[in-house]
Amino acid sequence: MAQKLVFLSEELRSYVIRTFTHLGVPDQDAKIAADVILAADLRGVDSHGIIRLHSYYTNGLMMGRINPLSPCHTIHETLTTAAIDGESGLGQVVSYKAMETCLEKARQTGVGMVTVRNSNHYGIAAYYAMMALQEDMIGISFTNSQPLVAPTYGKTALLGTNPIAVAVPAGTQRPYVLDMATSIVPIGRITVFQKAGKEIPVGWGIDQDGVPTSNPDAVLNGGALMPLGGIDLMRGYKGYGLALWVDIFSGILSGAAFGPFVGHPTDRERTNVGHYFAAIRLDAFRPVDEFKKDMDQMIQTIKDSPKAAGQDRIYIAGEKEYELSERYQRDGIPLMEEVVKNLKTGGNEVGEPFDLEPVGVIQV
Amino acid sequence: MAQKLVFLSEELRSYVIRTFTHLGVPDQDAKIAADVILAADLRGVDSHGIIRLHSYYTNGLMMGRINPLSPCHTIHETLTTAAIDGESGLGQVVSYKAMETCLEKARQTGVGMVTVRNSNHYGIAAYYAMMALQEDMIGISFTNSQPLVAPTYGKTALLGTNPIAVAVPAGTQRPYVLDMATSIVPIGRITVFQKAGKEIPVGWGIDQDGVPTSNPDAVLNGGALMPLGGIDLMRGYKGYGLALWVDIFSGILSGAAFGPFVGHPTDRERTNVGHYFAAIRLDAFRPVDEFKKDMDQMIQTIKDSPKAAGQDRIYIAGEKEYELSERYQRDGIPLMEEVVKNLKTGGNEVGEPFDLEPVGVIQV
Repeated sequence: MAQKLVFLSEELRSYVIRTFTHLGVPDQDAKIAADVILAADLRGVDSHGIIRLHSYYTNGLMMGRINPLSPCHTIHETLTTAAIDGESGLGQVVSYKAMETCLEKARQTGVGMVTVRNSNHYGIAAYYAMMALQEDMIGISFTNSQPLVAPTYGKTALLGTNPIAVAVPAGTQRPYVLDMATSIVPIGRITVFQKAGKEIPVGWGIDQDGVPTSNPDAVLNGGALMPLGGIDLMRGYKGYGLALWVDIFSGILSGAAFGPFVGHPTDRERTNVGHYFAAIRLDAFRPVDEFKKDMDQMIQTIKDSPKAAGQDRIYIAGEKEYELSERYQRDGIPLMEEVVKNLKTGGNEVGEPFDLEPVGVIQV
Repeated sequence: MAQKLVFLSEELRSYVIRTFTHLGVPDQDAKIAADVILAADLRGVDSHGIIRLHSYYTNGLMMGRINPLSPCHTIHETLTTAAIDGESGLGQVVSYKAMETCLEKARQTGVGMVTVRNSNHYGIAAYYAMMALQEDMIGISFTNSQPLVAPTYGKTALLGTNPIAVAVPAGTQRPYVLDMATSIVPIGRITVFQKAGKEIPVGWGIDQDGVPTSNPDAVLNGGALMPLGGIDLMRGYKGYGLALWVDIFSGILSGAAFGPFVGHPTDRERTNVGHYFAAIRLDAFRPVDEFKKDMDQMIQTIKDSPKAAGQDRIYIAGEKEYELSERYQRDGIPLMEEVVKNLKTGGNEVGEPFDLEPVGVIQV
């Protein structure tokens, strides 16, 4: 029987920081990267959390693909925009700096937009969008990623799961935080069904002939994920259109790799991932208190509305993640035994052994 | 047996202009409104074309809900942004002016963003986004609309079909033009199935208990449309999240009505529809020719990729609409007999009889 081991988030954070600094990442940058990684675990987006510490990040640092100093420079800028070269630094550090530039431009002019080329996997998209919240700004964050999604009527994975993140302040309500892959499910979800020997719902993925399948193996071996919407009848071409939008902004506007040319985060070669960030000052349009009052009314109206049969609650984007984050900060983050085992193996390889003691065990 | 009557687009355009000027709309504004309406018919988006001339627009003008002079004024502006009050003018005219302001701001600073409150139904979202193309800019256009879509786990229509339109220039390829409702299908699609006495695919809509149904009557009478993605298993909460995003930008950032408070385009009372526009100069990020070269490569790569079983072509967003538009401009626009009948009735009521002769008939 499998179990999950529970670790305190602050202890995991310190471990991630130690690991990065051990590999030559400056203190401040290690703190940023660790904060982005832990934010994923706290928000329940395990697939982008500490599970990737070694496969995506320390491996890249050790083989020299990721530059631990995360240097980056501005290629071109205007009053409102900047195009940044991430110089193969840590995606989280480069993106944090890019969003800071974006916020500064918005402070000056009302709106900021920043693209990044030559970056690496940046973790959860929402993190950077949420940086805008404390400044009474709306934040937007897009990234491209390695190809996993086939265009409608195609059968080859040409687009990433290219997420859209939008964070909007509210008043007494929690902020609206959308963070959605433009595929129906991430590839990891297919793997979970494969490992469990279960069929996937038809529509999540296609086989090597481009035909929707219930067989996870067929999706993973020569098939592809379907874009949001799924089959044509359900308007999957809209999800495909959104995925392409994200890639145009992240990959093409930035001058990064795009489409099938984006590298996988475990590659030996540089991945040349691209990102897009935007920040919008609320008071560039209307008084902040008026805006927040309307946000609160909108959220309350939706939450108070009648529930569908069998449902007792309507959620706003980001709400579940806020609640989970509070709980995990208090009680600790549960990690699958296998994840902990991999952290130990990886830690030994890096030379920064994973020696944390769990504060609890959950049978699953 | 039903038939379609084919009319030359330029004759329809002249008729629409005559009708608007007859109702006190200034010449220039009538041309703008007619151009937006005809663009919908030419692009095959019949639901937003001349079929709505009377139900959405001339009725509103005649009952005094729509101001024929489309006055509008800027409430607040910064270097990069403007918040405009549409003063209940024609949605098309107010939006055209707003997008012009947006383009001017982008010319000056790299990026422009404009919101509009107190507007009316603005036709197809793509029209305004596409205004950016000839200036080597990316254009974005969102609008909210009367409530038709239920939030995930809810059963009441609280959100509009809130479209997202994004237009991006390419080089030798046609531009990328996404224009998608954030519901799976528009409400008119359900009506088509109802009239034909056919069942709808399960997932397009819910009944009054919030349960997905194949019965179009159940959706139309007390039910609601489902957001893109559909049921939970297929991640319909993403479509719901997108619809809310569009409403936050169009309704709340602008200070317009939002959610269930947006009026129906056939209402007697002001609808207070809200819009959001953005324009982004390509050369604020990288040289235009480099950008376009990458767009061409991306588009070609997708179109050249292997096709799914039974398919012989992969489309880029907007491509079908460009082709249809060229064909209809050449051969004329086919209108259902019933639509022509309604144009005649409406034309007589307005005092501008619809007296065009069709150039062809198509049996359907």
